[in-house]
Amino acid sequence: MRQAGRYLPEYRALRERTPSFLDMCFTPTLAAEVTLQPVRRFGFDAAILFSDILVVPLALGQSVTFEAGDGPRLDTGALGRLRPHVDHGKLEPIYETIGRVKEELPSEVALLGFCGAPWTVATYMVAGRGTPDQAPARNFAYQDPQAFGRLIDRLVEASSEYLVRQFRAGVHAVQIFDTWAGTLPPVEFVRCCVDPVARIVNAVRAAIPGAPIIGFPRGAGTSLPIYVRRTGVTAVGLDWMIDLAFAAAQVPSGLALQGNLDPLVLRAGGAALDVAVDTVMAAFTGRPFIFNLGHGILPDTPIPHVEQMLARVRAS
Amino acid sequence: MRQAGRYLPEYRALRERTPSFLDMCFTPTLAAEVTLQPVRRFGFDAAILFSDILVVPLALGQSVTFEAGDGPRLDTGALGRLRPHVDHGKLEPIYETIGRVKEELPSEVALLGFCGAPWTVATYMVAGRGTPDQAPARNFAYQDPQAFGRLIDRLVEASSEYLVRQFRAGVHAVQIFDTWAGTLPPVEFVRCCVDPVARIVNAVRAAIPGAPIIGFPRGAGTSLPIYVRRTGVTAVGLDWMIDLAFAAAQVPSGLALQGNLDPLVLRAGGAALDVAVDTVMAAFTGRPFIFNLGHGILPDTPIPHVEQMLARVRAS
Repeated sequence: MRQAGRYLPEYRALRERTPSFLDMCFTPTLAAEVTLQPVRRFGFDAAILFSDILVVPLALGQSVTFEAGDGPRLDTGALGRLRPHVDHGKLEPIYETIGRVKEELPSEVALLGFCGAPWTVATYMVAGRGTPDQAPARNFAYQDPQAFGRLIDRLVEASSEYLVRQFRAGVHAVQIFDTWAGTLPPVEFVRCCVDPVARIVNAVRAAIPGAPIIGFPRGAGTSLPIYVRRTGVTAVGLDWMIDLAFAAAQVPSGLALQGNLDPLVLRAGGAALDVAVDTVMAAFTGRPFIFNLGHGILPDTPIPHVEQMLARVRAS
Repeated sequence: MRQAGRYLPEYRALRERTPSFLDMCFTPTLAAEVTLQPVRRFGFDAAILFSDILVVPLALGQSVTFEAGDGPRLDTGALGRLRPHVDHGKLEPIYETIGRVKEELPSEVALLGFCGAPWTVATYMVAGRGTPDQAPARNFAYQDPQAFGRLIDRLVEASSEYLVRQFRAGVHAVQIFDTWAGTLPPVEFVRCCVDPVARIVNAVRAAIPGAPIIGFPRGAGTSLPIYVRRTGVTAVGLDWMIDLAFAAAQVPSGLALQGNLDPLVLRAGGAALDVAVDTVMAAFTGRPFIFNLGHGILPDTPIPHVEQMLARVRAS
């Protein structure tokens, strides 16, 4: 999950001096600095590239802006005249950021790249913004499956190329975020989430044999087994709602699990945080496991709570 | 799920002449008429009492208003001075509505009562409104488990008494709606959703032996089996996200399943609707099953789509 952000004073200090959020993402010196900030402060085992999933629609020719405190806005009028292929020139600063981070990162710390999954990116492209129930994209998929399929196809190709170039620029592994996978019925989940991610995994591995890829189908719930089986991801990120015994039993034991602390209990802190950390640590003994949150860190999370969590994880 | 509503012109005609949504709920002639409207139009096998889950906080002394198009508003300042027990005088018009509906309803049509589950009702009571992630109530549960537990205890008692009186007024079965169960980690799901509903089921059955009770833990996902096992509900309502093979395998075959058409595919209509109806019908052969939506009908659902769905269900 994104490690940098507004909960860090050193991030806020840089952000205040930068005109827009996208300027942060597309200025390699800034993006590299922000990527490194949480690793310097907390000594994490991995750094996560600071960027945004909506750089792909941008590189496909759809305008994207971020209103302060109000999330992204995309030009839905551009949906009918997207570029057939991604403009890698637009994404060049991100590849440069990866190179800069690699120069400064201790050799024992992994660097993770990422992209949004086609379904999640499409929900923003179709609605022009974030939506609580993804109704515009879900409706589009029901009413015009052909046109929706073409949009997904374009995102599969763009995302595959984008991840391959991230690997070539130096990331050790990538993560595919399907934040809005959880509102789909199982048949639609397979069509919109599982199949496109499977195609990305195949395309990336054709260029980068054995590339480590972490899938994060948030809200997959009872459909997690089919996601794992069909996508061929190396590891799977778990949201905080899933039953841990179910995940441990249903996901083959050689496959790494990642997760899944409730971001809200990290913000709440106290005894509840200790109990929740212990629950996660106890659930995944005896298999490859990456401790993480079950989704992104909340902006108003107190830093002492992050320190409390880390101390408990490291002592266990 | 609620059958009446804005998608029906006969509902809109009555609603326009009524000062507020709560006036509809608390005026027995109006609430009975609205309860009967969808049964008259579509010939459903069951009628669902027209009311709202927030009548329980009202009867506990918390003020509730409905702003047009903006959902409910509750006075969070009243949380510290709730009545210890529910004021059944306030709920009397609802029991009267049940009697009126029973007089007019054909004898072969069942009448269902309902209440909100303590967790879902608490999310509104704590936040003062609907929230996309239920963060205020979840945070309260983490930070002050004792005070949160007292609120849940009060809701368990109030809801149990409310359901018993609905049975005594004449409903054939009741449903317990836990609309916001899906954002909780498994441990919290058991504490906030499973245990309180189990206590309600026990209390209602102590007064009404064998009372049929349908549980609806929306978003339960991988935690559905523990919900079914521990609550002792007679039937379980399924949301549209759950894997049907998982539900059919995990829920004991004597227990009825209810659901689970995506309300959005009903609004979308067309070939996608036919396919989705067939998927639901095929998944639940050979066991007690109630065809239903996976959540409430959307206000802008075209009536011809409801007719298309019913014809397909009845022909299958």
